[in-house]
Amino acid sequence: MARRRAPLYRSPEAAARPRARRTVETRHGRPVPAPGDKTELEEGALFTPRFDRNGLIAAIAVDATSGDVLMLAWMNAEALRLTLETGIVHYWSRSRGKLWRKGDDSGQQQKVVDIRTDCDQDAILVRVEVGGDGGACHTGRRSCFYRLVTATPSGARLRFT
Amino acid sequence: MARRRAPLYRSPEAAARPRARRTVETRHGRPVPAPGDKTELEEGALFTPRFDRNGLIAAIAVDATSGDVLMLAWMNAEALRLTLETGIVHYWSRSRGKLWRKGDDSGQQQKVVDIRTDCDQDAILVRVEVGGDGGACHTGRRSCFYRLVTATPSGARLRFT
Repeated sequence: MARRRAPLYRSPEAAARPRARRTVETRHGRPVPAPGDKTELEEGALFTPRFDRNGLIAAIAVDATSGDVLMLAWMNAEALRLTLETGIVHYWSRSRGKLWRKGDDSGQQQKVVDIRTDCDQDAILVRVEVGGDGGACHTGRRSCFYRLVTATPSGARLRFT
Repeated sequence: MARRRAPLYRSPEAAARPRARRTVETRHGRPVPAPGDKTELEEGALFTPRFDRNGLIAAIAVDATSGDVLMLAWMNAEALRLTLETGIVHYWSRSRGKLWRKGDDSGQQQKVVDIRTDCDQDAILVRVEVGGDGGACHTGRRSCFYRLVTATPSGARLRFT
């Protein structure tokens, strides 16, 4: 494919518009804007998520009512796009290797209240309203973080909360 | 090295003791107990963290006072062990490729209040008391999640909170 050449002349209106940003292909889903430098990542107003080498970004779900952390899961570019566009949280299931609209089987649908990203844009924090029984964990608990880790002389043990 | 053979006889006392659990080598740090099957992982009382192929596990830090999510970072086996043993949060810095006791430079030391793991033991949730100025982000914000992601017709934008 021929490389597109930069135009020799840009009208003042065109010049005032931001230039099309370079995009990156992700392993799953469509191209997304390429991350910029450190300052752009940390202080910029453009969302340029940094997917890992598997095309995934970590997403923390927090119960918007209680503030409790419910779960940590993963999104690919498609899951993130669908989450933003539909307001319903989508993940990428690493174990099943497929897109996963949370709640389709369990009823524990997660409705987006708001989404944040962190300083270097390699993590997502989603505050959600949970449907169904209000839980998030497939084991039946409300939160996936239902065990405390405690150090003992014979190693670290878990205690149910 | 000769392979150690199972003893032909175990005394009733020895038989009553749990057998030494198989361990796995991690890329960073010392061997840790090998994860068990799904039921052991989800319902067991033994902490068998599931490090990824880089020997890392995701760790979410939450402010124990406000309940706010402060940051998402990574621990290797050594960082996790030191966190458990010292009560001061240690991470593995992926960008610097080294162990990182949070706060050594910034004063933003994180004192462990409690640690939880999730259902399949591939994530850690640490509630912390933050030292120094009470912040966690190197950009000067209290939390690393200081920007909201919003969908616009021209793509996703960020808004400072």
